Amino acid sequence: MIAFEDLPAGKIIPLGDLVVDREDMLDFARKFDPQPFHLDDEAAKNSIFGSVAASGWYTASLWMRRWVDTVLSDSTSQGSPGGRELSWLAPVYPGDKLTFEAEVLNARRSKSRPTLGLVEFEGRAKRDDQVVYRFIATGMFSTRS
Amino acid sequence: MIAFEDLPAGKIIPLGDLVVDREDMLDFARKFDPQPFHLDDEAAKNSIFGSVAASGWYTASLWMRRWVDTVLSDSTSQGSPGGRELSWLAPVYPGDKLTFEAEVLNARRSKSRPTLGLVEFEGRAKRDDQVVYRFIATGMFSTRS
Repeated sequence: MIAFEDLPAGKIIPLGDLVVDREDMLDFARKFDPQPFHLDDEAAKNSIFGSVAASGWYTASLWMRRWVDTVLSDSTSQGSPGGRELSWLAPVYPGDKLTFEAEVLNARRSKSRPTLGLVEFEGRAKRDDQVVYRFIATGMFSTRS
Repeated sequence: MIAFEDLPAGKIIPLGDLVVDREDMLDFARKFDPQPFHLDDEAAKNSIFGSVAASGWYTASLWMRRWVDTVLSDSTSQGSPGGRELSWLAPVYPGDKLTFEAEVLNARRSKSRPTLGLVEFEGRAKRDDQVVYRFIATGMFSTRS
């Protein structure tokens, strides 16, 4: 089980990759972000995206699923209070192959609760060498000792 | 149609409310954030949440849908580069009535592209008077002139 002690500053954690599925992407947009440029190519043609592009929240949710599967699902995670920087750096399109990773920026024990650790990390989704999404967030993890 | 000029600093935009639907909340968790405390009450009982609670990304997505329906769907929106602060301030549970709003923090024309405006706003979800989620983000909107 992954605990606070396993997430030191500097650690880079590969989270795998996936190809963006058009139907799944559109399902998300219909439900949570039904802007025309997230729903159909015709409407997107005249937008800044040029063709139908993922909702940024879909990309964030894809990243989250990879983080859960690789780290949180077998960890001492106690949730997250949020993050301080979230960037959608480039549009994401159906068929894009995204690679996901996380990098621990810093890790410290809570002063008020010494059995709890605060891990600040940067989550990233890349297409080839281009970062298309990043989020600097804090995760709370129980310590092993 | 809502353009940059309609979103001056200080403007507060009510985005309506909704009651968190348990099945919809669990569907999201199964798909994007299958941590035990987001999936079932038994597993959540011994977590910091006490009973099954929403994924923070679900709350963010609910907020987004309200923002689209109230503002973006009939606007000059050109997407968003991201935000600088995202906070999950309290757990959200099935049956919670959430009220959504946005407040424009500042608005300025782009120097390099004077027909584009950058609107920084704080999105909030509240339960009664408690803010449970907030996100300070930037939206890009074409100007009317």
